[in-house]
Amino acid sequence: MSKNFPADSVGVVKPTVQHFTDPLMLDCGRALAEYDLIYETYGKLNEQRSNAILICHALSGDHHAAGFHSEEDKKPGWWDSAIGPNKPIDTNQFFVVCLNNLGGCKGSTGPVSINPLTGKLYGPTFPIVTVRDWVESQARLADTLGISKWAAVIGGSLGGMQTLQWTLQYPERVSHALVIAAAPRLSAQNIAFNEVARQAILSDPEFYKGRYYEHNTVPRRGLMLARMIGHITYLSDEAMRAKFGRELKEGKLNFGFDEAEFQVESYLHYQGRSFVGRFDANTYLLMTKALDYFDPAREFNHDLVKTLANVQAKFMVISFTSDWRFSPERSREIVQALLRNRKSVNYAEINANQGHDAFLMPIPDYMAIFHAYMQQVAKEVNV
Amino acid sequence: MSKNFPADSVGVVKPTVQHFTDPLMLDCGRALAEYDLIYETYGKLNEQRSNAILICHALSGDHHAAGFHSEEDKKPGWWDSAIGPNKPIDTNQFFVVCLNNLGGCKGSTGPVSINPLTGKLYGPTFPIVTVRDWVESQARLADTLGISKWAAVIGGSLGGMQTLQWTLQYPERVSHALVIAAAPRLSAQNIAFNEVARQAILSDPEFYKGRYYEHNTVPRRGLMLARMIGHITYLSDEAMRAKFGRELKEGKLNFGFDEAEFQVESYLHYQGRSFVGRFDANTYLLMTKALDYFDPAREFNHDLVKTLANVQAKFMVISFTSDWRFSPERSREIVQALLRNRKSVNYAEINANQGHDAFLMPIPDYMAIFHAYMQQVAKEVNV
Repeated sequence: MSKNFPADSVGVVKPTVQHFTDPLMLDCGRALAEYDLIYETYGKLNEQRSNAILICHALSGDHHAAGFHSEEDKKPGWWDSAIGPNKPIDTNQFFVVCLNNLGGCKGSTGPVSINPLTGKLYGPTFPIVTVRDWVESQARLADTLGISKWAAVIGGSLGGMQTLQWTLQYPERVSHALVIAAAPRLSAQNIAFNEVARQAILSDPEFYKGRYYEHNTVPRRGLMLARMIGHITYLSDEAMRAKFGRELKEGKLNFGFDEAEFQVESYLHYQGRSFVGRFDANTYLLMTKALDYFDPAREFNHDLVKTLANVQAKFMVISFTSDWRFSPERSREIVQALLRNRKSVNYAEINANQGHDAFLMPIPDYMAIFHAYMQQVAKEVNV
Repeated sequence: MSKNFPADSVGVVKPTVQHFTDPLMLDCGRALAEYDLIYETYGKLNEQRSNAILICHALSGDHHAAGFHSEEDKKPGWWDSAIGPNKPIDTNQFFVVCLNNLGGCKGSTGPVSINPLTGKLYGPTFPIVTVRDWVESQARLADTLGISKWAAVIGGSLGGMQTLQWTLQYPERVSHALVIAAAPRLSAQNIAFNEVARQAILSDPEFYKGRYYEHNTVPRRGLMLARMIGHITYLSDEAMRAKFGRELKEGKLNFGFDEAEFQVESYLHYQGRSFVGRFDANTYLLMTKALDYFDPAREFNHDLVKTLANVQAKFMVISFTSDWRFSPERSREIVQALLRNRKSVNYAEINANQGHDAFLMPIPDYMAIFHAYMQQVAKEVNV
């Protein structure tokens, strides 16, 4: 590892692309004849292959969870606060795998990939993928890596939903499930926010029914609005107050619409603009649908207790007090349903004012509990 | 009154337009040389002129608060639940005045009015108006009606902010102030939601810098998105769950983006579409700025206690438990500041799951408390 990086960093990492040729049947009824999954790994797989951890990413995440892509890279992966030597997901002990999900735009097959059947970009013809589809593809990646059972599957937000789905779909392949800042399904309000974000993209004249790339453009305005709406739901009212208050950008009111006046407006504009350059609108649409559709209890007459009857994993569920996107109440639904099934479950409700975003932050209480739990996992899997 | 209307309706009402020719200096530094205010009245002004009530409207409200515009009119005014014979604002006892605010689009001078200086529509050249400007214009309307002191000024949401401003700007002209579902200023999160709504309108290619009418169009998509975002904040998560749950419109997932799938999506689409036909985009922008700018404590070093030191009105403050746009906590800020000034204040926190919209609904506890308070007002002003 380069001396440029902190001692608890995994340092420079390189992604790997795995090509799959077994057709994947999807929930929507269509199939992918072949596809790529891009992933990164940190740490070493032990001889018993018992120390593997799967990290599932959230809406706009990807396979680059930790470390840097070059010596010059200034920004580490999206969960670098939790993954590395001596961090909660300790790469001295665990072999960590993180992939970009199908439908993504960072290297796994998705709307910005070429459809091998047509030789053209998938674009809006890429099928809608579900959390179940993702878990299926992740299981195939595990097979190629020779991992028959994960020491733990871990994810926050939409990642937590994938974690939960793993315990239902492959109960025998998950020792521990860490479900963080998640929910067993979206609420009507959650769906409403997603729908406004989708409408912002779909109604942008530059969207061209998803074929914007054929017109050498992107639905910039729609994607910006979608991201701005998202960001409001990622932060708590409290966090926004602490971060921006009612501070004026130029110290005075402008009495006009041309410029951002309050700091919070500048922040949202910046977040919106920067997202446009690094994310694909069709992928954004797909990810929001995967969120809306996730509802494993639907098949069990909306009974979450019955839904979780056959899980084998031990659970650690974590929520954050100021998270109003997926509030602690939503996490407790999962905990209660597990308890009623007499399953092993730990639950921590972290006092944090950062809102939903807290799950990505190195909040001391959170890191301590996370770390302690993972040490327990390490002991159990004999690493 | 027609027998077609319920006994507790004010029946058919007709608005009046009052033209003003005294220039109105605005907070933004510009002036309106002349302007119209459209208003309705319900009930009769008594001889002592002591029974007049001013109703202030919220973001998308207008002067038509109660009754019907014709015998055939199916929908009554926006606060018909609270205004009428034997209702909380009892028109057998009070003379009720409600006007459309300056900058509005329902008959008072605003962006859809002709600028007398140019002979053309104001459109985006209409000046930004503040809550203070509105109170000033409302005071002039009171003068023309011969009302030197209101028995009560009453408003919900942005209307509550006007009520609060009245007690600061004309303390001697307000006997009672009913501040409902309001806040002493917007939070950063409130401003953030407004800003996304504004950006949706401003970035719509059909907005044409506010001169859409010259292109025979309206920023339909932007205004729809703005209204959809607004509606999410008007309802509580709980109310959305009760109203829509995760019900599917067609009973099954579509795996596509062409149609609304969940009921909550259809609801938002409908609300967005219907708004476009009845509201002006430039007015929407102005109303959101009036909200953002309202912050009477700014002149008092952000000290709300000092801000309220000179109010003379007696207050009734009402909030709703599930209102997350202006939560009970925000109302309690006002109550606490009044108490620290030893002012007369009643406070009711109504148990209601309807969110911010609750202030418009005939919730029994709310109506009972509202009614009882107004009976007290009636006694005091000798009606």
